[in-house]
Amino acid sequence: MTDLILTTFDWVPEVPRGYVRDIRVRWALEEAGLPYRVESVPFRDRDTAHFSRQPFGQVPWLTDGDISIFESGAILLHLGQRSEALIPTDPRSRSEVIEWLFAALNSVEMASLPWSIFIFSGDTEATPGRKSLDNFLESRLQHLESVLAEREWLAGAFSVADILMADVLRLVERFDGLAGQPACRDYIARATARPSFVKAYADQMAHFAAAD
Amino acid sequence: MTDLILTTFDWVPEVPRGYVRDIRVRWALEEAGLPYRVESVPFRDRDTAHFSRQPFGQVPWLTDGDISIFESGAILLHLGQRSEALIPTDPRSRSEVIEWLFAALNSVEMASLPWSIFIFSGDTEATPGRKSLDNFLESRLQHLESVLAEREWLAGAFSVADILMADVLRLVERFDGLAGQPACRDYIARATARPSFVKAYADQMAHFAAAD
Repeated sequence: MTDLILTTFDWVPEVPRGYVRDIRVRWALEEAGLPYRVESVPFRDRDTAHFSRQPFGQVPWLTDGDISIFESGAILLHLGQRSEALIPTDPRSRSEVIEWLFAALNSVEMASLPWSIFIFSGDTEATPGRKSLDNFLESRLQHLESVLAEREWLAGAFSVADILMADVLRLVERFDGLAGQPACRDYIARATARPSFVKAYADQMAHFAAAD
Repeated sequence: MTDLILTTFDWVPEVPRGYVRDIRVRWALEEAGLPYRVESVPFRDRDTAHFSRQPFGQVPWLTDGDISIFESGAILLHLGQRSEALIPTDPRSRSEVIEWLFAALNSVEMASLPWSIFIFSGDTEATPGRKSLDNFLESRLQHLESVLAEREWLAGAFSVADILMADVLRLVERFDGLAGQPACRDYIARATARPSFVKAYADQMAHFAAAD
């Protein structure tokens, strides 16, 4: 088994700390008990070597032997091949985890991240587009609320789908966007109480603080 | 090998026709030459049976024997296990296709779909949040433009990554959002010239027209 190397920024401003996407990978690695080390690339000067690993100039990426992978969803799917704690091997359970992994990114985060851009901009103008965007998010959250009101984790046991969904929802909760979704809030609390998240979060905070 | 069943709406209004996400699945099935049939659920009255298959009340979903899968990304990943025309089996090539599949959905569509909501609302107010959203999309498109200026397909041969990326970009082009990205426009033209897309598109249009 080759060494796993997680690459993230050397430093980020205060606001995104604790929410940089390397936390998803750290969380999965801790959950699976897989050994790894962390390397850094400059936040301020992103060179061609960086873009050759992550074409959008973002982080994280994971190196596993001669394979280098960007996109947190793709990385978690890759790690899931190494550990049943992340993705079960039974085809039906596996398929359920994977559809929810995509749902976290493409049904919920596709609505919540753009919404958070408006919140973060302090933009409160209720223009027609903004109302549609708010309704888009609200609808997705209400459907998710119905699901989470009836189950502990998205697909049977805790999995990578929960790592992604809980991390996506954390950002909504940060901006008080889950006032009407108590089951989503309870779900975040359950997920982030796991020792694997606690360690991943502390490690990310310490990593960026060390560069201050 | 079990029958593959693709479920979509029975009807949709004029505007989304040709852009409903079942086209991604049709395209992949045609590309792989896999036999399938199409079933419909009501667009207007979405019942609990619908939500049990697609928790957000959307389409499509795919049935493969006793497995039912929602999320177009998850469905294309599943179909990729059946055909090398969709996802190659060599681990390194496979990993490259999968990271680009996620990039289409979580790096590009996460910016482009919310942007299209504003365009579709006829919302032209340059509020601070809107400016941030426009910049977010522009940045993603510029990085993608650099990639596509140098390669025919995202990950070696044509794959599910191109089906998703081209379909995501089609909606941006529809709303004239690719004026500054000629390589992206050429890429869409290359991808949609494939007989598999032409048939998938014609089939979707015919399916909805039949219910008018």
